[in-house]
Amino acid sequence: MAPRTVDLRSDTLTHPTQAMRDAMFKARVGDDVYGEDPTVNELQEMAAEMMGKEAALLVPTGTMGNLTAILAHCERGAEILVGDEAHIYVYEAGGASALGGVAYHVIPNSPNGELPLPALQRAVRPIDQHAARTQLCCIENTHNRCGGAVLSLQYLASLKKWADTRSLPIHMDGARVFNAAASLDVPVSEIAKHVTTIQFCLSKGLAAPIGSMVAGPRDFIDKVHRWRKMLGGGMRQAGVIAAPGMIAMTDMAKRLHEDHRNAKLLAEGLSEIEGIVIDKTCVHSNIVLFVLSPSDLSEDEFLAGLQQQHVRMIQFGPRMIRAVTHWQISQADIDITIAAVASVIKQGRTSGLMSAIKHLGLTSNGYGGPAR
Amino acid sequence: MAPRTVDLRSDTLTHPTQAMRDAMFKARVGDDVYGEDPTVNELQEMAAEMMGKEAALLVPTGTMGNLTAILAHCERGAEILVGDEAHIYVYEAGGASALGGVAYHVIPNSPNGELPLPALQRAVRPIDQHAARTQLCCIENTHNRCGGAVLSLQYLASLKKWADTRSLPIHMDGARVFNAAASLDVPVSEIAKHVTTIQFCLSKGLAAPIGSMVAGPRDFIDKVHRWRKMLGGGMRQAGVIAAPGMIAMTDMAKRLHEDHRNAKLLAEGLSEIEGIVIDKTCVHSNIVLFVLSPSDLSEDEFLAGLQQQHVRMIQFGPRMIRAVTHWQISQADIDITIAAVASVIKQGRTSGLMSAIKHLGLTSNGYGGPAR
Amino acid sequence: MAPRTVDLRSDTLTHPTQAMRDAMFKARVGDDVYGEDPTVNELQEMAAEMMGKEAALLVPTGTMGNLTAILAHCERGAEILVGDEAHIYVYEAGGASALGGVAYHVIPNSPNGELPLPALQRAVRPIDQHAARTQLCCIENTHNRCGGAVLSLQYLASLKKWADTRSLPIHMDGARVFNAAASLDVPVSEIAKHVTTIQFCLSKGLAAPIGSMVAGPRDFIDKVHRWRKMLGGGMRQAGVIAAPGMIAMTDMAKRLHEDHRNAKLLAEGLSEIEGIVIDKTCVHSNIVLFVLSPSDLSEDEFLAGLQQQHVRMIQFGPRMIRAVTHWQISQADIDITIAAVASVIKQGRTSGLMSAIKHLGLTSNGYGGPAR
Amino acid sequence: MAPRTVDLRSDTLTHPTQAMRDAMFKARVGDDVYGEDPTVNELQEMAAEMMGKEAALLVPTGTMGNLTAILAHCERGAEILVGDEAHIYVYEAGGASALGGVAYHVIPNSPNGELPLPALQRAVRPIDQHAARTQLCCIENTHNRCGGAVLSLQYLASLKKWADTRSLPIHMDGARVFNAAASLDVPVSEIAKHVTTIQFCLSKGLAAPIGSMVAGPRDFIDKVHRWRKMLGGGMRQAGVIAAPGMIAMTDMAKRLHEDHRNAKLLAEGLSEIEGIVIDKTCVHSNIVLFVLSPSDLSEDEFLAGLQQQHVRMIQFGPRMIRAVTHWQISQADIDITIAAVASVIKQGRTSGLMSAIKHLGLTSNGYGGPAR
Repeated sequence: MAPRTVDLRSDTLTHPTQAMRDAMFKARVGDDVYGEDPTVNELQEMAAEMMGKEAALLVPTGTMGNLTAILAHCERGAEILVGDEAHIYVYEAGGASALGGVAYHVIPNSPNGELPLPALQRAVRPIDQHAARTQLCCIENTHNRCGGAVLSLQYLASLKKWADTRSLPIHMDGARVFNAAASLDVPVSEIAKHVTTIQFCLSKGLAAPIGSMVAGPRDFIDKVHRWRKMLGGGMRQAGVIAAPGMIAMTDMAKRLHEDHRNAKLLAEGLSEIEGIVIDKTCVHSNIVLFVLSPSDLSEDEFLAGLQQQHVRMIQFGPRMIRAVTHWQISQADIDITIAAVASVIKQGRTSGLMSAIKHLGLTSNGYGGPAR
Repeated sequence: MAPRTVDLRSDTLTHPTQAMRDAMFKARVGDDVYGEDPTVNELQEMAAEMMGKEAALLVPTGTMGNLTAILAHCERGAEILVGDEAHIYVYEAGGASALGGVAYHVIPNSPNGELPLPALQRAVRPIDQHAARTQLCCIENTHNRCGGAVLSLQYLASLKKWADTRSLPIHMDGARVFNAAASLDVPVSEIAKHVTTIQFCLSKGLAAPIGSMVAGPRDFIDKVHRWRKMLGGGMRQAGVIAAPGMIAMTDMAKRLHEDHRNAKLLAEGLSEIEGIVIDKTCVHSNIVLFVLSPSDLSEDEFLAGLQQQHVRMIQFGPRMIRAVTHWQISQADIDITIAAVASVIKQGRTSGLMSAIKHLGLTSNGYGGPAR
Repeated sequence: MAPRTVDLRSDTLTHPTQAMRDAMFKARVGDDVYGEDPTVNELQEMAAEMMGKEAALLVPTGTMGNLTAILAHCERGAEILVGDEAHIYVYEAGGASALGGVAYHVIPNSPNGELPLPALQRAVRPIDQHAARTQLCCIENTHNRCGGAVLSLQYLASLKKWADTRSLPIHMDGARVFNAAASLDVPVSEIAKHVTTIQFCLSKGLAAPIGSMVAGPRDFIDKVHRWRKMLGGGMRQAGVIAAPGMIAMTDMAKRLHEDHRNAKLLAEGLSEIEGIVIDKTCVHSNIVLFVLSPSDLSEDEFLAGLQQQHVRMIQFGPRMIRAVTHWQISQADIDITIAAVASVIKQGRTSGLMSAIKHLGLTSNGYGGPAR
Repeated sequence: MAPRTVDLRSDTLTHPTQAMRDAMFKARVGDDVYGEDPTVNELQEMAAEMMGKEAALLVPTGTMGNLTAILAHCERGAEILVGDEAHIYVYEAGGASALGGVAYHVIPNSPNGELPLPALQRAVRPIDQHAARTQLCCIENTHNRCGGAVLSLQYLASLKKWADTRSLPIHMDGARVFNAAASLDVPVSEIAKHVTTIQFCLSKGLAAPIGSMVAGPRDFIDKVHRWRKMLGGGMRQAGVIAAPGMIAMTDMAKRLHEDHRNAKLLAEGLSEIEGIVIDKTCVHSNIVLFVLSPSDLSEDEFLAGLQQQHVRMIQFGPRMIRAVTHWQISQADIDITIAAVASVIKQGRTSGLMSAIKHLGLTSNGYGGPAR
């Protein structure tokens, strides 16, 4: 029998828990296009309340959550302020421009995931016929490509203050905002109160199989509802995915600190391996980014070597590797992982890793694959 | 205890069967964004094979299935030939234009759901800088707003012949194509072979809670895959909806003739009620359209009267009412329905239907509500 | 020396008059992007005043005038009500959809160019997530593909009354609205007062070399100004085309009745030729449409035959030919034209017209070429 | 009589020369939508030949030239690599995204106007469903916001080499490419040969009143032609602007070195004024950028002070002022300008500049106004 794989590629890989499967099995359903799915309605009310917003809406994915939010906030000919490392900009296929006629106005992210206020201030366009209309500021929390960075409440408060002076709404891509809340040890509404609208995922660390939520003011959600329909996100008996979604937001949210502890343990272990460069003080949630320094070991070779030892991670840029903890990763798995990394690094090129790559069919696209 | 409602508003209201709930509970899953959900992969292979196409892809809804197909077939600046009664044109919020920069070139549908070939021939634009590029012909089968009309194989063959001479691809909105196959008593591939690409729903008469499929050539599906991601339809552990989807395409498809028989019974019963105008020879699948003739009974009053008797239908245009049969409607329900209609018609305005309307909060938007 | 051609293909072919060349030569200019071109400013004020609107703006073409108006009136996801024979729908390359995310909701034009009110009434979409937003009604006056039909003031008044009840703005594609005013013998403002916004051309019958105007409320023109910039219509020393534009709107507008008289003379002459079918009572402006009935003479053959006799017209559909009068067509030219048509019809196929076609390189695209 | 103003705000303000007015007056014209304007055809052939490209097309503005080029190169869902200081990104209203569904992938410009090759290399997206398609690289030459910087032939050659390895087309916004050619003292084709397509303006330093050209391969120009029509750039008797355009490309191009000499003289003069910070070695064409250092003199005050002395410039960013030389600026005007700047700086705040601002109605939008 094949040994179990310690799969750290992403928390998007999480399977639903047994409780979630039970909930799906028993879910009361109706046609949500008619607004008649009781479980969806319950989920949406719960989400709105947890976020401290007037209303919330279920969408199939985080990408649709962000896209509907942008479409609801912005006219054709608008632009959004967004980080150069943001999922919205890097991994959502240019959808805001392609489908919505909205331009990206890209601001370099600080390493801690922030968009510096002076850069934002400079970026807002004047009301002038030569300029796109700046109509939204997008932030991400936790910030995936910034290593799961958690935005501080202080930063969020100052960002809100700035945005309010310009009457500029803020949208948070909170795909992993429950990780941020766990890291800060605050209710998620303490984060959400600083933004106009928020998208968060029921999948990822929260382990629901399908679904994300958009929350915000009632009239905004009404607009999101219409764009969801046009995009093809208006599902029928969606109660079957809403039911596990409620478990995600409650029971699963409560245990995220375990993933964070495991991430820290992993970072500590890795920091002691020669050939791995990592700033372990930067690990604040369930994402661990590290640099592979030995120049004779390619990223593909390293990943293939790990996979031979039944551990999986992904490439996240040149020499950059990402590992993500989640509910299916135990503390024992962390020990296995650290040992496997040490072994692969030590082994280096000597042991035919190139043939392993060919065998496994791995190839790098320099993008690190489908990398939420 | 409230008596059970005979809900004929739409087959989109169908609940998953017990077998489907079992299948969801047990489904093997993986992250479908990584292509690793075994149940989704199995569903997609099954769908491709049943349609006789190279490949198929799961999408959350029929609207997304049609939209991704249009985006994959058409460039910015293209136009599609589409019926004036088509779901794509009437109920999909203008998405092809709004999101894809594709114009609708509308052809009046024949009452039997066809787009007449002479009209199509006239509609194809010349290659000229003044004209949009005609890049796709869209048909619908069965045709919802044409009363569930089933396109004949002969028509489909001649349409294909015409389209081939112009190298124009045909996309079928086959939201209810299994009803068409049941009505014609042929495998669905006998229908699909006449079109380049097809979208069909696992929900509706097939009763799966969520999901539609797009099928066609491999390179087309590759494009659909990309547009699905951009639109936000790339779900994670989608096996939980793929599992009931497989039951939908197999077991549930086999029983659709029962719904058709019930629809015919309903039409026959209605045709004997004074005040109802219906051509019962036009009922070929699970949709029954009829006209309410008494001028002193509004559509809202009629529907409210029915609802008081625990039967529900929807308005489908001025004086037009639609009833749809499905697996949760038995032959006995048909008898109840006929009796209820007769009673409401007889009762007419005399019995305070206007107050019932106010009580139930019904109002007509002239559109007949969310009417797939 | 080659004899002069009587070119009736279109009034878009008109050359500027000597007075216009003088005006261009002497025009005071400035940078209109800075709002500093005095001649443009004067033209715009004159146009606004003549139309009875708050403001007007110069654009390079009628197509841009219509497109900017649609973009200014409509959001992404809107639809416009437009005639199936409208220039906006037939000859503007699908631009509203391709560039603006606006859908065409097409209404069959009456032969007199009107959009019937009952059809408009049915076409307005409900406010529903399934529907595009109906945000504009577009009419054309005079109506090119309806043979230069002039909309009656009575129709316009009733259209306005209907639109006002729905708060729906009306945009007039008045490319040839001065012809309509000449035909009705009223100031153009008597027409324009029935519509919210209007586009009209300084070229065509008015003979300016370049330029069209958009007129309407101030805030609408402000939006048009922005879209003009984005589309690339913000010209610099545009005074050089504004100067002849002022002559177009004044001196040239006054003489349009001459073109209308010539068109009537042409129609009368043609009506007496066997093989030509024409309803001469339908000629109300400077456009003459007629049907070629001899089945042994193709449209291309007919046009080639005319061209051999130094007379030019264009095809305007199957068996349909269009001739347009303008300031470079005299009453004597009409006599020449009638004689030429009679001669070609008589001559028929016998005299080697097919070889003439090959010689001239004419081919029909079934569209009638670039046919404003 | 008011003294003449030395207007250095932009070379877009240039009036047509007397020779240009003569040429307009005499221009042979035809309907260019029919391809029958002989002067336009001659201009287009001349432009193609000067650029060393297969074909060229006249458009009303540089913005339309760039927009049609982007639309012709890129599909919906593409992205373009473009500098953060590029006119295309900063001053064209987000049109590529708003109208074309094309995302901006912004690369920080080097101060010399280049896009560094390593940054370009990193920016090209992988072929992945998560990513927009990188389909075009846009450069600007001379580079307006980089102070009229001239791209070196060596840089262009290496850029082309890089782009060729990726099969990525390069589009040059050559609004002022004749200034670049004059600065390098090479034929403009020596610059254009390094790019796939190019847009250049007949206005600006070349002084034609209206018009820009797009040049490139024949099939590209065919696409540009179609997009020009859809955008509303297909003008009628465009010979009246093509005629001065030919003078622009020939006689006016030959004298640009005079403007460059005057720009250098201005820079040298300014560099000797205390309170002005300028690197005079950076002035390579007709644009002079300098920094206003005295902290007690606002940009608006400085510009208002100049205007009182009949000299005009514009703000081009915080503390940044731009002056542009052109054919209506003589060497004597440069002396006047230097004296005026020195006087205003000296005078400073003491002399009531604030009231001058109010009097003149100047206000800064931080954008520097309409700043080609």
